[in-house]
Amino acid sequence: MMTPFSRRTLLLGTALAAGAFGRRAQANSPAVKIQVPGLYRYRLGNFELTALNDGVWQLPIDAAFVPNAPFAKVQQAMVDAFMPATDHLALPFTALLVNTGARLILIDTGTGGQITPAAGLLESNLRAAGTTPDAIDAVVITHFHPDHINGLKTKDDALVFPNAEIFVPEPEWTFWTDDANLRAASEVVKGYFLNVRRIFGHLAKDLHRYRPGAELVPGIVAIFAPGHTPGHHAIALASGNQSMLVLSDTSTHPALFVRHPEWAAAFDLDASAAIKTRKKLLDQVAAERMLVAGYHFPFPACGHIAKTATGYEFYPAQWSPQL
Amino acid sequence: MMTPFSRRTLLLGTALAAGAFGRRAQANSPAVKIQVPGLYRYRLGNFELTALNDGVWQLPIDAAFVPNAPFAKVQQAMVDAFMPATDHLALPFTALLVNTGARLILIDTGTGGQITPAAGLLESNLRAAGTTPDAIDAVVITHFHPDHINGLKTKDDALVFPNAEIFVPEPEWTFWTDDANLRAASEVVKGYFLNVRRIFGHLAKDLHRYRPGAELVPGIVAIFAPGHTPGHHAIALASGNQSMLVLSDTSTHPALFVRHPEWAAAFDLDASAAIKTRKKLLDQVAAERMLVAGYHFPFPACGHIAKTATGYEFYPAQWSPQL
Repeated sequence: MMTPFSRRTLLLGTALAAGAFGRRAQANSPAVKIQVPGLYRYRLGNFELTALNDGVWQLPIDAAFVPNAPFAKVQQAMVDAFMPATDHLALPFTALLVNTGARLILIDTGTGGQITPAAGLLESNLRAAGTTPDAIDAVVITHFHPDHINGLKTKDDALVFPNAEIFVPEPEWTFWTDDANLRAASEVVKGYFLNVRRIFGHLAKDLHRYRPGAELVPGIVAIFAPGHTPGHHAIALASGNQSMLVLSDTSTHPALFVRHPEWAAAFDLDASAAIKTRKKLLDQVAAERMLVAGYHFPFPACGHIAKTATGYEFYPAQWSPQL
Repeated sequence: MMTPFSRRTLLLGTALAAGAFGRRAQANSPAVKIQVPGLYRYRLGNFELTALNDGVWQLPIDAAFVPNAPFAKVQQAMVDAFMPATDHLALPFTALLVNTGARLILIDTGTGGQITPAAGLLESNLRAAGTTPDAIDAVVITHFHPDHINGLKTKDDALVFPNAEIFVPEPEWTFWTDDANLRAASEVVKGYFLNVRRIFGHLAKDLHRYRPGAELVPGIVAIFAPGHTPGHHAIALASGNQSMLVLSDTSTHPALFVRHPEWAAAFDLDASAAIKTRKKLLDQVAAERMLVAGYHFPFPACGHIAKTATGYEFYPAQWSPQL
């Protein structure tokens, strides 16, 4: 007969019998109280990839977060995914470092510690990975939201990756540097415009503006994926006989927007274009069983997408002790 | 218009335009080629838990692995879970270190490097976690399969945790030390019997044999869960107002036996008892939304179980940068 147990009986301490230690504890072993570095390596052909966590945003949410679905349904999706709360979303940030063998390329840069106190870890995780910011040869920016670009600069506007060439999407540049667009923006989005000026202002002449479809470096191709922002790009990687798609913010948290691709996200500047792009890319990576990475997917933020009756499902890649 | 892309076009290098680096690479950054340590911390009330990966077993499988299901269905389940192969199963080993605040307690011990070349990492991961084998106050063994007990000893039979009291299940001890059972066993299982003698032989008088339902240490309770082996136990943990269930081998890989709890597993000595136990415990943790750990679940091997129309689904806990 199995021992009866439940939360209730466990917490009341009604177990049947107590064991006993015959010896004193051998060592004073205080709790460590800090997490291990947020990094994980994997291979794609001849590329060595490193997922670099920048932290997490405990984002308060309400009905405005998914304007085209009842908030009760959004909360139920969070319960279904075993999220610990339904009044805020734990939204992780994970950038991707690509070592092509010839170059070190960072795709997006984290928050620079400028958005939430629980993020800004990218640089320390990069160092824990055995490299340094000045070793980065290139930074590829997928779009101009602050959590993707602020890691380019410290709070004091010093360049974090002093030796890196910076690639930015041409249509993203065009949109965010247009004064008429700034004037037409909501207050929140105005902040993003001004942030773009702070981050990129004096760098304008040095930026590489890439066009949809451009191969930035051999095996690294920009895939136009508009909607989240007008110039948002996914990044396709290919090496040897392997390929993957870095989705960036094609979907933010998969428990919400991969499972419910038809949901509009408050962060999507053009929600209907974002939904169209999301469905198209998720359809394709599901059909091709292609490995994906997602900037806001649970760390290490890589895995696969399966099509379901009502949407898609994210399957995290199994952690491997080997490369 | 979105850029067309596919595995095929990516690998053929038919992207639209090539970018160019204006500078030489800044640093010689060779691929690291080794994974980060397999450890992850989380809290349960006042307990600090550390998942310690011991490695992975690339286990060749055939129709005998799930004797009561067509092998094609087993292979389809592996495809559905995006496993990289269907002729072998990547079966991870992850033990759990519990710091109660007063004691350091290790639940199961890994393979001791005695089963497969890709495992035996527990001790190095324990050191990477900032502790040492001699700081372990107690080892709780869930059952006597080699991948759970061999980490107690080196290949040369030296004790790995010299200061630890060792807790073993009484019914497990009774079964595996019975000569008649040894004589009746298949060749493979005979090896397990002999291995039990090697590991525990000279320790017999020092072992704490625990009974089903025993509270081994305050907040650590043995839950009888027979079938995988006759004396197999799950371990319930409770601290503060939180509780969880360490399932051990109630299910091995969740993509197979959580999704298909009715499948018999080759490793289950009494498959029908194991199925009964599996369904009962999975039902209960799903109903109570209790956190679980699984020894062969993908690292960090903790998360939740949801009931589905046909079985259960494992939801990995979201990696957190904070404790």
